[in-house]
Amino acid sequence: MAQAGKRRDAGPGGRRRGPTRTREQILDAAREQFAALGYGGATIRGIAGRAGVDPALIHHFFGSKDDLFAAALPLPAELISAVPALLAEGLDGAGVRLVRHYLGLWEDATTRRAMLAMVRSSVGHEEAGHLLREFIAARLLPRTAALLPAPAELRMTLAMSSLSGLALGRYVLEVPALRDADLEVLVASVGPSVQRYLTGDLGAEH
Amino acid sequence: MAQAGKRRDAGPGGRRRGPTRTREQILDAAREQFAALGYGGATIRGIAGRAGVDPALIHHFFGSKDDLFAAALPLPAELISAVPALLAEGLDGAGVRLVRHYLGLWEDATTRRAMLAMVRSSVGHEEAGHLLREFIAARLLPRTAALLPAPAELRMTLAMSSLSGLALGRYVLEVPALRDADLEVLVASVGPSVQRYLTGDLGAEH
Repeated sequence: MAQAGKRRDAGPGGRRRGPTRTREQILDAAREQFAALGYGGATIRGIAGRAGVDPALIHHFFGSKDDLFAAALPLPAELISAVPALLAEGLDGAGVRLVRHYLGLWEDATTRRAMLAMVRSSVGHEEAGHLLREFIAARLLPRTAALLPAPAELRMTLAMSSLSGLALGRYVLEVPALRDADLEVLVASVGPSVQRYLTGDLGAEH
Repeated sequence: MAQAGKRRDAGPGGRRRGPTRTREQILDAAREQFAALGYGGATIRGIAGRAGVDPALIHHFFGSKDDLFAAALPLPAELISAVPALLAEGLDGAGVRLVRHYLGLWEDATTRRAMLAMVRSSVGHEEAGHLLREFIAARLLPRTAALLPAPAELRMTLAMSSLSGLALGRYVLEVPALRDADLEVLVASVGPSVQRYLTGDLGAEH
């Protein structure tokens, strides 16, 4: 089954394309299909068709659809696993830990570049926004729902909106007061807001 | 001085262009120049050159550079005047009032379209981000600094980041839990966070 793809990769002749390029084509196709159809709607078969490779090659390179999603969008995938893990450690102080972890992703030069690309594309282009929404709705929220008091989805999305607004000001727009603030000042400032969203009184019936 | 522009506008003949089109060309040039050079660097003369009109025509149509900025970016300009006015009414309850006012701008279909265009362009494209940063740093912060306790700039930008994160989730990414939430639930949820940023203990020395 993987032969079509393997042949293209392995041939030493003129039309050779290396596995790196094939991987990139698969990842591009995956990002397109996840954006257009959402996580649930996208299929390995459809992505393979888009990339012009055999579906088995995708399984060979990436494993499951879940693994492919993680490879196509490494940072959301990191957040998917990190956020539930942070909450599972205990809700006391989870706000501060979440802000520190999230800002840590942005502080690292390599992950910052990837985060920036993700934010720019998902906010700048409507279709890419679907992908991030899909990630949040289908992948993050179900894994955190059982860890938070009701209304868990609202709590988690309020916390995420607080984090993303902070990143927007500090790393994307680079507003000086946020860009130049000490990291721990931001953790101490925003942590309690996130904590209230996660566990506090939201001040109204939902 | 305004004759060059007036002649173009007023002529009934073939090369006529209406004042509406001329206004649009000036506004386009203004947005370009404000984005490229910032509020401080952009000049009426430079904008006029870019638009191919006499500087006096800009004064005739729009008044001062300040007025032109407001016309080119009506929503930031609305916020420039609304936020200090809200704070000046008194800091008690300012968080809730600010969230309600800001969400109100997004709830209105017409202003929502303009806000969305502004966010998409300023986040999606680096240069447009300069414009929004410039707006915040040069126009909003100086008008609110005297109304807030120290560190006033950090407080105001934290409040704005909280608002923009909320708008990002509800109106740009349309995350269901935020998109479908009752407006007053969001006001009650986010208002106290904004209030803490404006007047509360930020939890660390700055």
